[in-house]
Amino acid sequence: MASEHVTRHFQEELEQLKARLLEMGGLAEEQVRIAVKGLVDRDRDLIDRVMVSDGALNALHIEIDQRCFTLLALYQPMAVDLRAIVAAVKINTDLERVGDLAINIAEASRQYVQHPPVKKLIDIPRMATIAQSMLRDALDAFVRRDTILAQRVLDEDDELDDLKTQIFRELITYMLQDPATIEPALDLILISRHLERIGDHATNVAEDVIFMVSAKDVRHHAADGQV
Amino acid sequence: MASEHVTRHFQEELEQLKARLLEMGGLAEEQVRIAVKGLVDRDRDLIDRVMVSDGALNALHIEIDQRCFTLLALYQPMAVDLRAIVAAVKINTDLERVGDLAINIAEASRQYVQHPPVKKLIDIPRMATIAQSMLRDALDAFVRRDTILAQRVLDEDDELDDLKTQIFRELITYMLQDPATIEPALDLILISRHLERIGDHATNVAEDVIFMVSAKDVRHHAADGQV
Repeated sequence: MASEHVTRHFQEELEQLKARLLEMGGLAEEQVRIAVKGLVDRDRDLIDRVMVSDGALNALHIEIDQRCFTLLALYQPMAVDLRAIVAAVKINTDLERVGDLAINIAEASRQYVQHPPVKKLIDIPRMATIAQSMLRDALDAFVRRDTILAQRVLDEDDELDDLKTQIFRELITYMLQDPATIEPALDLILISRHLERIGDHATNVAEDVIFMVSAKDVRHHAADGQV
Repeated sequence: MASEHVTRHFQEELEQLKARLLEMGGLAEEQVRIAVKGLVDRDRDLIDRVMVSDGALNALHIEIDQRCFTLLALYQPMAVDLRAIVAAVKINTDLERVGDLAINIAEASRQYVQHPPVKKLIDIPRMATIAQSMLRDALDAFVRRDTILAQRVLDEDDELDDLKTQIFRELITYMLQDPATIEPALDLILISRHLERIGDHATNVAEDVIFMVSAKDVRHHAADGQV
């Protein structure tokens, strides 16, 4: 990037890009929150709202992708700025998938509430809370280039995995005892998998943040690599 | 890009990048093939082989990412070349996830073969064949910049969805009739979901190809957008 003027423009546009990603993260998180609240409260209106409100997310997804291309083409950024834009492209994809997963949760919830409740839902809302907080922290880490916060997100993923396994075991017990619970318990198992995947997306974002800041690839326990 | 010399270098490196992506796609596809063959043949050695052989895939994942960064930083490509590199970054992520899904299939298969077979497996190998062929076609479409082939991949996804729904309904019937089938039937349901997601990744690749070639965003039925 040639002049100071151009650099300032680039940094302004980068800030706008970050603001858009935060906005998208907020929308995706809200979709997850509404879907799980709809499930817990057995509120069909709330569940249905998730299905119809992904338009804003999809529009942002396309807008953010275009902003990234424009930044790459106009400013030809280097080093950490280049890594920030490529990270933004990836994070954008992750957030869009979180929105899709919220819809998957809503779909399974709609099935679930057609049956009597299998059990009091405690672990699934707990998984949702963890997944949402991982997502928020990962995005904050991106905006603030905070690798310590990003590392904390990576550490939280184990708790989500443990809850998923625990939910699975518990629900199989219900299914074996009472065939009437088979279908609704299956819905809960699928919902817990969707929540686990939201945690995976937060993990992806956190890994991208660490790579962006330090050019250190923490995926697959890779050796340090400088670009 | 300034000179003809630089352009030739860039095109050579782009060809190498494409070759690496094809190689990675081949590895990911092979992992899926082995996992599903292990399931169908109830062959634990084959299933275990999937678990330990994702090292090559992970190494390629990191290498391809670095090649993309190098190409962006050194050559600052524009228009279709820029879109090709960003597409490569995304496709690389999708292929890595396919490798992870092959491991998920192997894990569920290892559980499954501990029980007597629930049924003759016909639809799951069929799903695997479709998902693998979608993945191969999507990568060929990328390399050849073939939007017609990419569109065909998008059309194939419905068949995969239908098979998944059909498998789900059939297995629930088994579970309701005989509680002894609950656990293994659950494994098959999860495997069918993993295969569906492999199809989703092939779909992502196909969408990236269409965007790369035509700068037309086919995601979310977006309006045409030029970058």
